[in-house]
Amino acid sequence: MRKEIRIAGSGGQGIISASIILAEASGIYDGKNVLQSQVYGAAARGEMSKADVIISDEEINFPEVRIPDVLIALTQDAYDEFTKFLKRDSIVILDEFYVYHLDDKLKNFPFSITKTSVDITGRQISANIVALGILSGLTGIVTLEALKRAVVERFKNRSEPNIKALEKGYELGTKEAINGKTF
Amino acid sequence: MRKEIRIAGSGGQGIISASIILAEASGIYDGKNVLQSQVYGAAARGEMSKADVIISDEEINFPEVRIPDVLIALTQDAYDEFTKFLKRDSIVILDEFYVYHLDDKLKNFPFSITKTSVDITGRQISANIVALGILSGLTGIVTLEALKRAVVERFKNRSEPNIKALEKGYELGTKEAINGKTF
Repeated sequence: MRKEIRIAGSGGQGIISASIILAEASGIYDGKNVLQSQVYGAAARGEMSKADVIISDEEINFPEVRIPDVLIALTQDAYDEFTKFLKRDSIVILDEFYVYHLDDKLKNFPFSITKTSVDITGRQISANIVALGILSGLTGIVTLEALKRAVVERFKNRSEPNIKALEKGYELGTKEAINGKTF
Repeated sequence: MRKEIRIAGSGGQGIISASIILAEASGIYDGKNVLQSQVYGAAARGEMSKADVIISDEEINFPEVRIPDVLIALTQDAYDEFTKFLKRDSIVILDEFYVYHLDDKLKNFPFSITKTSVDITGRQISANIVALGILSGLTGIVTLEALKRAVVERFKNRSEPNIKALEKGYELGTKEAINGKTF
Protein backbone atom coordinates (compact mmCIF):
# COMPACT_ATOMS: atom_id res chain seq x y z
CA MET A 1 0.00 0.00 0.00
CA ARG A 2 1.26 3.45 -0.93
CA LYS A 3 -1.07 6.42 -1.00
CA GLU A 4 -0.40 10.06 -1.63
CA ILE A 5 -2.74 12.60 -0.06
CA ARG A 6 -2.77 16.30 -0.85
CA ILE A 7 -4.67 18.70 1.42
CA ALA A 8 -5.29 22.14 -0.07
CA GLY A 9 -7.19 25.28 0.82
CA SER A 10 -6.55 28.85 1.91
CA GLY A 11 -4.20 30.28 4.51
CA GLY A 12 -6.29 30.12 7.68
CA GLN A 13 -7.80 26.67 7.24
CA GLY A 14 -5.23 24.63 9.15
CA ILE A 15 -3.98 22.76 6.09
CA ILE A 16 -0.49 22.16 7.46
CA SER A 17 -1.77 21.18 10.91
CA ALA A 18 -4.10 18.64 9.31
CA SER A 19 -1.30 17.13 7.27
CA ILE A 20 0.95 16.82 10.32
CA ILE A 21 -1.83 15.20 12.36
CA LEU A 22 -2.42 12.76 9.50
CA ALA A 23 1.31 12.06 9.25
CA GLU A 24 1.66 11.47 12.99
CA ALA A 25 -1.44 9.27 13.10
CA SER A 26 -0.17 7.07 10.26
CA GLY A 27 3.52 7.14 11.14
CA ILE A 28 3.41 6.85 14.91
CA TYR A 29 0.12 5.08 15.67
CA ASP A 30 -0.71 3.11 12.50
CA GLY A 31 2.94 2.07 12.10
CA LYS A 32 3.31 3.19 8.48
CA ASN A 33 6.19 4.97 6.81
CA VAL A 34 5.18 8.56 6.20
CA LEU A 35 6.65 11.60 4.54
CA GLN A 36 4.96 14.93 5.13
CA SER A 37 5.93 18.08 3.25
CA GLN A 38 4.82 21.55 2.31
CA VAL A 39 5.97 24.44 0.19
CA TYR A 40 6.12 28.09 1.23
CA GLY A 41 6.76 31.21 -0.79
CA ALA A 42 6.10 32.04 -4.40
CA ALA A 43 5.59 28.36 -5.18
CA ALA A 44 2.68 28.33 -2.75
CA ARG A 45 0.79 30.65 -5.12
CA GLY A 46 -0.32 33.56 -2.99
CA GLU A 47 -3.00 32.80 -0.46
CA MET A 48 -3.22 29.14 -1.30
CA SER A 49 -1.95 26.55 1.12
CA LYS A 50 -1.19 22.93 0.39
CA ALA A 51 0.53 20.10 2.15
CA ASP A 52 1.34 16.56 1.06
CA VAL A 53 1.47 13.26 2.92
CA ILE A 54 2.78 9.99 1.53
CA ILE A 55 1.74 6.91 3.51
CA SER A 56 3.36 3.59 2.71
CA ASP A 57 3.88 0.10 4.04
CA GLU A 58 7.30 0.12 2.42
CA GLU A 59 10.20 2.48 2.80
CA ILE A 60 9.54 5.66 0.85
CA ASN A 61 12.13 6.03 -1.86
CA PHE A 62 10.87 8.89 -3.94
CA PRO A 63 9.40 11.27 -1.45
CA GLU A 64 7.70 13.83 -3.62
CA VAL A 65 3.96 13.81 -4.09
CA ARG A 66 3.58 13.72 -7.86
CA ILE A 67 0.05 12.55 -8.44
CA PRO A 68 -2.15 12.36 -5.36
CA ASP A 69 -4.49 9.41 -4.86
CA VAL A 70 -6.64 11.67 -2.70
CA LEU A 71 -7.08 15.43 -2.98
CA ILE A 72 -8.84 17.17 -0.12
CA ALA A 73 -9.96 20.58 -1.46
CA LEU A 74 -11.37 23.11 0.97
CA THR A 75 -11.70 26.02 -1.48
CA GLN A 76 -12.65 26.51 -5.13
CA ASP A 77 -9.19 27.91 -5.89
CA ALA A 78 -7.54 24.81 -4.42
CA TYR A 79 -9.92 22.57 -6.37
CA ASP A 80 -9.26 24.39 -9.64
CA GLU A 81 -5.50 24.37 -9.18
CA PHE A 82 -4.84 20.87 -7.90
CA THR A 83 -7.39 18.82 -9.82
CA LYS A 84 -5.05 19.49 -12.76
CA PHE A 85 -2.73 16.86 -11.29
CA LEU A 86 -4.77 13.73 -10.70
CA LYS A 87 -4.81 10.22 -12.11
CA ARG A 88 -7.87 8.43 -13.37
CA ASP A 89 -8.62 6.72 -10.06
CA SER A 90 -7.84 9.68 -7.81
CA ILE A 91 -10.68 10.83 -5.60
CA VAL A 92 -11.50 14.38 -4.51
CA ILE A 93 -12.95 15.08 -1.08
CA LEU A 94 -14.35 18.60 -1.20
CA ASP A 95 -16.19 21.11 0.94
CA GLU A 96 -19.51 21.56 -0.82
CA PHE A 97 -20.00 25.02 0.64
CA TYR A 98 -16.76 26.47 -0.73
CA VAL A 99 -16.37 24.34 -3.86
CA TYR A 100 -19.36 24.71 -6.17
CA HIS A 101 -18.01 24.43 -9.72
CA LEU A 102 -17.15 20.77 -10.13
CA ASP A 103 -15.47 18.96 -12.97
CA ASP A 104 -17.83 16.07 -13.71
CA LYS A 105 -15.04 13.92 -15.10
CA LEU A 106 -13.54 13.58 -11.60
CA LYS A 107 -14.50 11.26 -8.74
CA ASN A 108 -15.92 14.02 -6.56
CA PHE A 109 -16.99 13.34 -2.96
CA PRO A 110 -18.74 16.48 -1.68
CA PHE A 111 -19.22 16.83 2.08
CA SER A 112 -20.41 19.67 4.30
CA ILE A 113 -17.02 19.94 5.97
CA THR A 114 -16.97 23.51 7.29
CA LYS A 115 -20.67 23.47 8.18
CA THR A 116 -20.12 20.29 10.22
CA SER A 117 -17.25 21.99 12.07
CA VAL A 118 -19.52 24.91 12.98
CA ASP A 119 -22.37 22.59 13.98
CA ILE A 120 -20.13 20.49 16.23
CA THR A 121 -17.68 23.02 17.70
CA GLY A 122 -19.31 26.39 17.06
CA ARG A 123 -16.32 27.41 14.94
CA GLN A 124 -14.99 26.91 11.42
CA ILE A 125 -11.51 26.16 12.70
CA SER A 126 -12.04 22.40 13.09
CA ALA A 127 -13.01 21.90 9.45
CA ASN A 128 -9.55 20.42 8.88
CA ILE A 129 -10.21 17.80 11.55
CA VAL A 130 -13.65 16.97 10.10
CA ALA A 131 -11.88 16.42 6.77
CA LEU A 132 -9.45 13.94 8.36
CA GLY A 133 -12.35 12.01 9.86
CA ILE A 134 -13.99 11.86 6.43
CA LEU A 135 -10.73 10.62 4.88
CA SER A 136 -10.62 7.79 7.43
CA GLY A 137 -14.28 6.79 7.09
CA LEU A 138 -14.31 7.02 3.32
CA THR A 139 -11.02 5.37 2.42
CA GLY A 140 -9.57 3.54 5.42
CA ILE A 141 -6.12 4.96 4.54
CA VAL A 142 -5.71 5.98 8.19
CA THR A 143 -7.55 4.53 11.18
CA LEU A 144 -9.91 6.57 13.33
CA GLU A 145 -8.11 5.35 16.45
CA ALA A 146 -4.73 6.62 15.22
CA LEU A 147 -6.23 9.99 14.28
CA LYS A 148 -7.77 10.29 17.76
CA ARG A 149 -4.43 9.63 19.42
CA ALA A 150 -2.69 12.20 17.22
CA VAL A 151 -5.42 14.79 17.94
CA VAL A 152 -5.12 14.22 21.70
CA GLU A 153 -1.33 14.48 21.49
CA ARG A 154 -1.58 17.77 19.62
CA PHE A 155 -4.49 19.52 21.35
CA LYS A 156 -4.03 18.13 24.90
CA ASN A 157 -6.77 19.67 27.07
CA ARG A 158 -8.39 21.30 24.04
CA SER A 159 -8.99 17.92 22.41
CA GLU A 160 -12.65 17.31 23.15
CA PRO A 161 -14.32 19.43 20.43
CA ASN A 162 -11.74 18.18 17.94
CA ILE A 163 -12.44 14.54 18.82
CA LYS A 164 -16.14 15.22 18.24
CA ALA A 165 -15.34 16.88 14.90
CA LEU A 166 -13.22 13.88 13.96
CA GLU A 167 -15.92 11.35 14.89
CA LYS A 168 -18.60 13.23 12.99
CA GLY A 169 -16.36 13.42 9.92
CA TYR A 170 -15.70 9.69 10.20
CA GLU A 171 -19.45 9.02 10.36
CA LEU A 172 -20.05 11.13 7.24
CA GLY A 173 -17.20 9.40 5.41
CA THR A 174 -18.36 5.90 6.35
CA LYS A 175 -21.74 6.50 4.73
CA GLU A 176 -19.98 6.92 1.38
CA ALA A 177 -17.22 4.37 2.08
CA ILE A 178 -15.35 3.20 -1.00
CA ASN A 179 -15.38 -0.60 -1.43
CA GLY A 180 -15.88 -1.07 2.28
CA LYS A 181 -12.95 1.26 2.91
CA THR A 182 -10.34 -0.58 0.92
CA PHE A 183 -9.45 2.31 -1.33
CA MET B 1 21.20 30.73 -3.49
CA ARG B 2 19.96 27.30 -2.50
CA LYS B 3 20.64 25.89 0.94
CA GLU B 4 19.50 22.69 2.55
CA ILE B 5 19.19 22.61 6.32
CA ARG B 6 18.63 19.48 8.40
CA ILE B 7 17.57 19.82 12.03
CA ALA B 8 17.94 16.64 14.10
CA GLY B 9 17.63 15.58 17.70
CA SER B 10 15.36 13.52 19.93
CA GLY B 11 11.59 13.35 20.19
CA GLY B 12 10.82 16.15 22.66
CA GLN B 13 13.19 18.80 21.37
CA GLY B 14 10.81 20.63 19.03
CA ILE B 15 12.66 19.61 15.86
CA ILE B 16 9.60 19.79 13.61
CA SER B 17 8.39 23.05 15.14
CA ALA B 18 11.80 24.60 14.54
CA SER B 19 11.82 23.50 10.92
CA ILE B 20 8.34 24.91 10.33
CA ILE B 21 9.26 28.24 11.95
CA LEU B 22 12.38 28.37 9.76
CA ALA B 23 10.31 27.52 6.67
CA GLU B 24 7.68 30.17 7.45
CA ALA B 25 10.33 32.79 8.21
CA SER B 26 12.12 32.18 4.90
CA GLY B 27 9.07 31.50 2.75
CA ILE B 28 6.64 34.10 4.05
CA TYR B 29 8.83 36.90 5.46
CA ASP B 30 12.16 36.58 3.59
CA GLY B 31 10.37 35.91 0.30
CA LYS B 32 12.26 32.72 -0.57
CA ASN B 33 10.97 29.48 -2.03
CA VAL B 34 10.94 26.86 0.69
CA LEU B 35 10.18 23.18 0.99
CA GLN B 36 9.86 21.72 4.47
CA SER B 37 9.52 18.00 5.10
CA GLN B 38 9.81 15.29 7.68
CA VAL B 39 9.58 11.55 7.91
CA TYR B 40 7.62 9.55 10.47
CA GLY B 41 7.57 5.86 11.21
CA ALA B 42 10.25 3.21 10.91
CA ALA B 43 12.26 5.48 8.64
CA ALA B 44 12.54 7.98 11.50
CA ARG B 45 14.70 5.48 13.41
CA GLY B 46 13.11 5.14 16.81
CA GLU B 47 13.42 8.10 19.10
CA MET B 48 15.27 10.24 16.63
CA SER B 49 13.56 13.18 15.04
CA LYS B 50 14.69 15.04 11.97
CA ALA B 51 13.23 17.62 9.65
CA ASP B 52 14.53 19.18 6.47
CA VAL B 53 14.18 22.65 5.00
CA ILE B 54 15.29 23.69 1.52
CA ILE B 55 15.55 27.46 1.01
CA SER B 56 16.06 28.79 -2.49
CA ASP B 57 15.88 31.96 -4.56
CA GLU B 58 14.73 29.84 -7.47
CA GLU B 59 11.82 27.47 -7.82
CA ILE B 60 12.61 24.18 -6.08
CA ASN B 61 12.62 21.38 -8.61
CA PHE B 62 14.03 18.45 -6.72
CA PRO B 63 12.57 18.80 -3.30
CA GLU B 64 14.37 16.17 -1.33
CA VAL B 65 17.18 17.08 1.03
CA ARG B 66 20.04 14.93 -0.16
CA ILE B 67 23.13 16.51 1.29
CA PRO B 68 22.53 19.27 3.81
CA ASP B 69 24.63 22.43 3.73
CA VAL B 70 23.87 22.88 7.42
CA LEU B 71 23.19 20.17 9.99
CA ILE B 72 21.86 21.29 13.35
CA ALA B 73 22.47 18.38 15.76
CA LEU B 74 20.95 18.56 19.23
CA THR B 75 21.95 15.06 20.39
CA GLN B 76 24.94 12.73 20.00
CA ASP B 77 22.75 10.15 18.23
CA ALA B 78 21.62 12.75 15.71
CA TYR B 79 25.21 13.89 15.19
CA ASP B 80 26.47 10.34 14.67
CA GLU B 81 23.68 9.44 12.26
CA PHE B 82 23.43 12.50 10.10
CA THR B 83 27.06 13.58 9.82
CA LYS B 84 27.32 10.51 7.55
CA PHE B 85 25.60 12.57 4.87
CA LEU B 86 27.50 15.82 4.49
CA LYS B 87 29.58 17.44 1.78
CA ARG B 88 33.02 18.92 2.27
CA ASP B 89 31.75 22.44 2.91
CA SER B 90 28.77 21.50 5.09
CA ILE B 91 28.76 22.96 8.57
CA VAL B 92 27.47 21.38 11.76
CA ILE B 93 25.86 23.50 14.47
CA LEU B 94 25.78 21.36 17.61
CA ASP B 95 24.76 21.52 21.24
CA GLU B 96 28.04 21.16 23.12
CA PHE B 97 26.28 19.77 26.19
CA TYR B 98 24.64 16.84 24.39
CA VAL B 99 27.19 16.27 21.61
CA TYR B 100 30.63 15.53 23.03
CA HIS B 101 32.29 13.06 20.62
CA LEU B 102 33.10 15.15 17.58
CA ASP B 103 34.51 14.12 14.23
CA ASP B 104 37.45 16.48 13.74
CA LYS B 105 37.22 16.23 9.97
CA LEU B 106 33.95 18.17 10.04
CA LYS B 107 33.32 21.91 10.27
CA ASN B 108 31.90 21.78 13.80
CA PHE B 109 30.34 24.84 15.42
CA PRO B 110 29.65 23.98 19.08
CA PHE B 111 27.27 26.24 21.00
CA SER B 112 25.68 26.02 24.43
CA ILE B 113 22.21 25.75 22.92
CA THR B 114 20.17 24.03 25.63
CA LYS B 115 21.99 25.82 28.45
CA THR B 116 21.21 29.16 26.82
CA SER B 117 17.54 28.19 26.62
CA VAL B 118 17.51 27.39 30.34
CA ASP B 119 19.40 30.61 31.20
CA ILE B 120 17.03 32.78 29.18
CA THR B 121 13.64 31.13 29.63
CA GLY B 122 14.11 28.83 32.64
CA ARG B 123 13.29 25.82 30.47
CA GLN B 124 14.99 23.56 27.95
CA ILE B 125 12.04 23.77 25.57
CA SER B 126 13.28 26.86 23.71
CA ALA B 127 16.58 25.24 22.71
CA ASN B 128 15.15 24.82 19.21
CA ILE B 129 14.54 28.58 18.99
CA VAL B 130 18.05 29.35 20.28
CA ALA B 131 19.36 27.11 17.50
CA LEU B 132 17.42 29.08 14.86
CA GLY B 133 18.90 32.33 16.18
CA ILE B 134 22.39 30.80 15.91
CA LEU B 135 21.67 29.68 12.34
CA SER B 136 20.71 33.24 11.43
CA GLY B 137 23.67 34.92 13.17
CA LEU B 138 26.20 32.41 11.93
CA THR B 139 25.16 31.96 8.30
CA GLY B 140 22.71 34.67 7.27
CA ILE B 141 20.60 32.00 5.51
CA VAL B 142 17.52 33.44 7.22
CA THR B 143 17.11 36.94 8.66
CA LEU B 144 16.55 37.57 12.36
CA GLU B 145 13.62 39.82 11.50
CA ALA B 146 11.85 37.06 9.55
CA LEU B 147 12.43 34.56 12.36
CA LYS B 148 10.98 37.01 14.87
CA ARG B 149 7.84 37.45 12.79
CA ALA B 150 7.42 33.68 12.42
CA VAL B 151 7.91 33.17 16.18
CA VAL B 152 5.31 35.84 17.01
CA GLU B 153 2.90 34.31 14.50
CA ARG B 154 3.32 30.88 16.07
CA PHE B 155 3.51 31.65 19.80
CA LYS B 156 1.19 34.72 19.90
CA ASN B 157 1.01 35.87 23.55
CA ARG B 158 3.67 33.33 24.59
CA SER B 159 6.22 34.90 22.24
CA GLU B 160 8.31 36.98 24.63
CA PRO B 161 10.63 34.30 26.10
CA ASN B 162 11.05 32.80 22.64
CA ILE B 163 12.01 36.16 21.14
CA LYS B 164 14.64 36.51 23.87
CA ALA B 165 15.90 32.98 23.15
CA LEU B 166 16.06 33.84 19.46
CA GLU B 167 17.98 37.09 20.04
CA LYS B 168 20.48 35.42 22.36
CA GLY B 169 21.06 32.66 19.82
CA TYR B 170 21.57 35.27 17.11
CA GLU B 171 24.13 37.05 19.29
CA LEU B 172 26.02 33.79 19.88
CA GLY B 173 25.95 32.95 16.17
CA THR B 174 27.11 36.41 15.09
CA LYS B 175 30.29 36.07 17.17
CA GLU B 176 31.29 33.10 14.99
CA ALA B 177 29.78 34.46 11.75
CA ILE B 178 31.00 32.78 8.61
CA ASN B 179 32.48 35.22 6.06
CA GLY B 180 30.42 38.06 7.47
CA LYS B 181 27.33 35.84 7.20
CA THR B 182 27.53 35.07 3.51
CA PHE B 183 27.61 31.30 3.87
